[in-house]
Amino acid sequence: MIKALVSVLLVLVAVSSTFGKYIPKSGKRIPQTLSRGWGDQLIWAQTYEEGLYWSRSRNKPLMVLFHLEDCPHSQALRKVFSEDNDIQRTLDLDFVILNLVYETTDKHLSPDGQYVPRIIFVDPTMTVRADITGRYANRMYAYEPSDIKLLLSNMRKAKKLLKSEL
Amino acid sequence: MIKALVSVLLVLVAVSSTFGKYIPKSGKRIPQTLSRGWGDQLIWAQTYEEGLYWSRSRNKPLMVLFHLEDCPHSQALRKVFSEDNDIQRTLDLDFVILNLVYETTDKHLSPDGQYVPRIIFVDPTMTVRADITGRYANRMYAYEPSDIKLLLSNMRKAKKLLKSEL
Repeated sequence: MIKALVSVLLVLVAVSSTFGKYIPKSGKRIPQTLSRGWGDQLIWAQTYEEGLYWSRSRNKPLMVLFHLEDCPHSQALRKVFSEDNDIQRTLDLDFVILNLVYETTDKHLSPDGQYVPRIIFVDPTMTVRADITGRYANRMYAYEPSDIKLLLSNMRKAKKLLKSEL
Repeated sequence: MIKALVSVLLVLVAVSSTFGKYIPKSGKRIPQTLSRGWGDQLIWAQTYEEGLYWSRSRNKPLMVLFHLEDCPHSQALRKVFSEDNDIQRTLDLDFVILNLVYETTDKHLSPDGQYVPRIIFVDPTMTVRADITGRYANRMYAYEPSDIKLLLSNMRKAKKLLKSEL
């Protein structure tokens, strides 16, 4: 009886080790999200190419958000950004969004240098909106947590597409 | 008493609508993952630039996997791919990985056209391994679910870095 049980157990172990899902030696990981904590309910583009394509095809402005997971300024902005319902709702309804922890090869996305956090708006005509800036002369596309209302008003500015201004 | 309860309820509703997390009108969404179902336990690069950087700095080959969520061939390969522990373990230990649903601007990643599913290996020297191909002459970097062992053997080929062959 015990022998039979042991056999069954061995078979079960063999089956589970063959068909069980791969788990890293260091332990199970939480799957990575594309939002990286900037809005889990929003739909994020993965790459700049994808963002540009969505922006053109949906005629919505693209917001590109450069940040770093280890940067305390990025973390502080992320907290306020992800908890601000006006920001989240407006992004969900009216924007194509992309967050990046690596720079792209497109120099237009770093008009005054590569720093984080940095938020750049791109018109559906693929024109970088260099005119939509934050509060700081030396880092024109940076925002502090206290600038969240300015960011929202800049988003409203970006919603008025360049084309409609012609 | 009932009046007081109603007031408390109203305050609670007001508080929760102000401080509650943003939820889209269409209902709560499952956060997007970077794996897109190709291996939730693996660590995926987000962009080609990021993948190349990791590949160079860790001296590991980069696997770029082009697919489409709606493509039945991609879906069939994804099922076998994500459930194959040899594939998953080898990727986790020895590769930098990137899955893309949009083409990049780099023509080297589409040596014989833009189709899905398509798997391209890139050496840490940033050389696309055009020599590592599947079974099909017309779509040299395509794999069917039945080709999963060939894919594993190609991964082993890619692990022998170009540099070490010189």
